[in-house]
Amino acid sequence: MKRSSIAALIGGAAVAFGGGSAPAQQKPEDAIKYRQSALFLMGQHFGPLAGMAQNKIPYDKDAAVRHAAMVEFMSKLPWDRFAPGTDQGNTKAKPEIWLNLEDFKAKAEKMQGEVAKLAQVSKAGDLDALKAQVGEAGKACKACHDEYRNK
Amino acid sequence: MKRSSIAALIGGAAVAFGGGSAPAQQKPEDAIKYRQSALFLMGQHFGPLAGMAQNKIPYDKDAAVRHAAMVEFMSKLPWDRFAPGTDQGNTKAKPEIWLNLEDFKAKAEKMQGEVAKLAQVSKAGDLDALKAQVGEAGKACKACHDEYRNK
Repeated sequence: MKRSSIAALIGGAAVAFGGGSAPAQQKPEDAIKYRQSALFLMGQHFGPLAGMAQNKIPYDKDAAVRHAAMVEFMSKLPWDRFAPGTDQGNTKAKPEIWLNLEDFKAKAEKMQGEVAKLAQVSKAGDLDALKAQVGEAGKACKACHDEYRNK
Repeated sequence: MKRSSIAALIGGAAVAFGGGSAPAQQKPEDAIKYRQSALFLMGQHFGPLAGMAQNKIPYDKDAAVRHAAMVEFMSKLPWDRFAPGTDQGNTKAKPEIWLNLEDFKAKAEKMQGEVAKLAQVSKAGDLDALKAQVGEAGKACKACHDEYRNK
């Protein structure tokens, strides 16, 4: 996704289009639960890839391809749900997100780029390449969590 | 991201995934949260379609197509997370699911068929046809909820 388009999404454009297509009138609690759901699903599909990369579960190319495709898909959904007014409630999102929106967006885009690459790399069937890219994707996830997610 | 590219992604992904690809060893609480997340996302995208069908929000063909594609996509994910051992914990799933598994599966498949049809119908840009199919899809959701979901 191009930086300009995600900027439009997070900026709350009326016709926002990310995978998630947030409706114009969304309840803050639904927006929070939406992004949490997408990120949870992403994490559930990243887990097996990390397990393969760490030799904790057997490498399975077909499974890796499917999980990486799901990770890539889910990576597109959360962002337009970080709308104004969704900083309070049942959320671990730090207020710093909305104070440093450009940096947050940049980190989200970096992650999306790395998991898109992961989806591509998974198709080659090369475990070493997969391991390397799982590492890059994991770092991109962590960078945002370290800065913008409460424990 | 262009609309066409996410439409292609959703279409390709839906074909490729064949469900959420549950890992062999999943924690019951993760399986529960996985299916809840997918069903929540499905509901969030069904909501705007129901709103259009009920004339509560303006009809928007492009939005309808996107939401219906997301509903169809999410409809494929929950089912392999209704595994044995996931009947207890933070779940509204009734024990009857596992006592009537064939009927539960039949209802899940009925719903998937109706939302796949909804995704097709949405592309025609015919609001009356959309309304009718939203009704069919809603009935299929409700049939399963009435029988197998606690309030």
